[in-house]
Amino acid sequence: MATILPLTDKKSASKQDERPSLDALLGLVEGDLKKVNQHILDNMKSPVALIPQLAGHIIASGGKRLRPVLTLASANLCGYTGQRHIGLAACVEFIHTATLLHDDVVDESDLRRGQASANAIWGNEASVLVGDFLFSRSFQLMTADGSLQVLRILSDASAVIAEGEVLQLMTANEPTTTEEAYLEVIRSKTAKLFAAATRIGAVVAERPQAEEEALESYGMNIGIAFQLIDDVLDYSADQLKLGKTVGDDFREGKVTLPVILAYRRGNEEERAFWHRTIAEMDQKDGDLEEAMRLMTSHGTLDDSVDRARHYCSIARDALGIFQNGPTKEAMTDLVDFIIDRAY
Amino acid sequence: MATILPLTDKKSASKQDERPSLDALLGLVEGDLKKVNQHILDNMKSPVALIPQLAGHIIASGGKRLRPVLTLASANLCGYTGQRHIGLAACVEFIHTATLLHDDVVDESDLRRGQASANAIWGNEASVLVGDFLFSRSFQLMTADGSLQVLRILSDASAVIAEGEVLQLMTANEPTTTEEAYLEVIRSKTAKLFAAATRIGAVVAERPQAEEEALESYGMNIGIAFQLIDDVLDYSADQLKLGKTVGDDFREGKVTLPVILAYRRGNEEERAFWHRTIAEMDQKDGDLEEAMRLMTSHGTLDDSVDRARHYCSIARDALGIFQNGPTKEAMTDLVDFIIDRAY
Repeated sequence: MATILPLTDKKSASKQDERPSLDALLGLVEGDLKKVNQHILDNMKSPVALIPQLAGHIIASGGKRLRPVLTLASANLCGYTGQRHIGLAACVEFIHTATLLHDDVVDESDLRRGQASANAIWGNEASVLVGDFLFSRSFQLMTADGSLQVLRILSDASAVIAEGEVLQLMTANEPTTTEEAYLEVIRSKTAKLFAAATRIGAVVAERPQAEEEALESYGMNIGIAFQLIDDVLDYSADQLKLGKTVGDDFREGKVTLPVILAYRRGNEEERAFWHRTIAEMDQKDGDLEEAMRLMTSHGTLDDSVDRARHYCSIARDALGIFQNGPTKEAMTDLVDFIIDRAY
Repeated sequence: MATILPLTDKKSASKQDERPSLDALLGLVEGDLKKVNQHILDNMKSPVALIPQLAGHIIASGGKRLRPVLTLASANLCGYTGQRHIGLAACVEFIHTATLLHDDVVDESDLRRGQASANAIWGNEASVLVGDFLFSRSFQLMTADGSLQVLRILSDASAVIAEGEVLQLMTANEPTTTEEAYLEVIRSKTAKLFAAATRIGAVVAERPQAEEEALESYGMNIGIAFQLIDDVLDYSADQLKLGKTVGDDFREGKVTLPVILAYRRGNEEERAFWHRTIAEMDQKDGDLEEAMRLMTSHGTLDDSVDRARHYCSIARDALGIFQNGPTKEAMTDLVDFIIDRAY
């Protein structure tokens, strides 16, 4: 088991109760989110029993529903009073769930959010096919909604997500990957769906292009920050609390920003270490600890969090054009929450 | 290697040159099909190099393009003179290709049309993700076309295909599967996309509902017949000519109509054989030959072809409401060709 190196804790204990949280945001969309959950349950039904079983397993396994919440909050921010955002938030969650199912097959993961992954229980075959079903169902729901603009946004996002996943596959095990290439991967595989989720809020509210673009920018940038922090957390003790194990990315030879920076800042001997463990996947006892020591000595975990702060600043400013109010405040809190997850 | 049991050859040598062929149909749509192929090449481009590489491998590997040909022919039959059928035929082929990529992962196939399958060359991960990309790209193209009716038809078809594949997974290795359950699988996993491909032809031509439904019925029924004959051919010597091996379905424990009928017509000892080889997947040398002997003695290969004839008759009659002419004739020839493949 790895020795856990805690990230620098910049908060004092007395300030704990002031930490940013999702509570305000979740409170604002609570009623709508219940409807989204019902919509999800209603629409993953199929005469083929395995489909709701498997889909229910992953959908119920405690995800934060962050993407549908973003659609609901964005629609709210735009003053939308109709019901279309409910169904479209469910579409976004279906696309997300489909990619999770396929991701777990690609990564050969046995765990997802601390529970047995669907592929570990029902096999890769079923995970691939139920992913396809949820993906198709999502397009059925969008078609029923009837907005070609939404269809364009979400089909574009889906294609970009797949491109990002393939790109990630091609840069795996390559510690010389540039920060730009890594950013391109996370922009595609993660942030694009956040951006689509938020943009849709402005679309259903029929707001001007400038608001659509502001919300897209907000979503894109919190998406990038979210993934950056996720990648940092993979090397953090907090993973244990989440039922995850520390160092999964390292063991899979995944090249994330903390590794990229440690490689670039390292001396020859250190680069040889990264080549052996990440490129050649020749790992032995103590290597994860050594990797974390190198990342800490070069400050790459903290600096990755700083990079995430940069994108969070852009996200915060993107909201500037909207009227102040509880929704805008809650969406700004979310920005802070994303960074705060690292502590 | 299996002893090859030829199916009863009902044609005399002198009649060989009268055998139905796809030539007339392919001749009629030749110009359009070239455009479809170009459209496919243009739209599988991606900055992520592996995507066009892998997609190009499977798309170029000699498929008959039967589904896009059906869209082109159906549009033609409906007197359509525009260009929308080109892009939509490409969508249909993209969906088909995505399902092939995922199928090969599910079946762990190393061969596809006699060549190394994409998953055998690039791994399951890439096949899953490039399948997702093609699927998304297909919905991008449909969205660009802008018809919600087409989007409904093809998103419905995609969801049903995924349901059919899951259903097939659940009935695999189960020789007691009923003929109805098997038909439900092939209706979903194969025929539904044929039906969508043909129906779209009437939609772009803005023909009345009755013609849409006639073409859907035509597509659905030739799709069922096509899959039935495919399943028969898996036990036929002709497979060798196609670069395939005989008995793949048997070795994978797939339950197709020739097996279902042999099980139902068999005595206790024979059923024990099917249980051991298909349900328990306990197969030894000579089992494939024994399976083929049982199917021949009960006439289940010929009878499966007869079942296919039934669906072909329905398909032929479905075309009845259309004006006579070369396209209708060529589409009728296709019906005969599907059965003739068995000989």
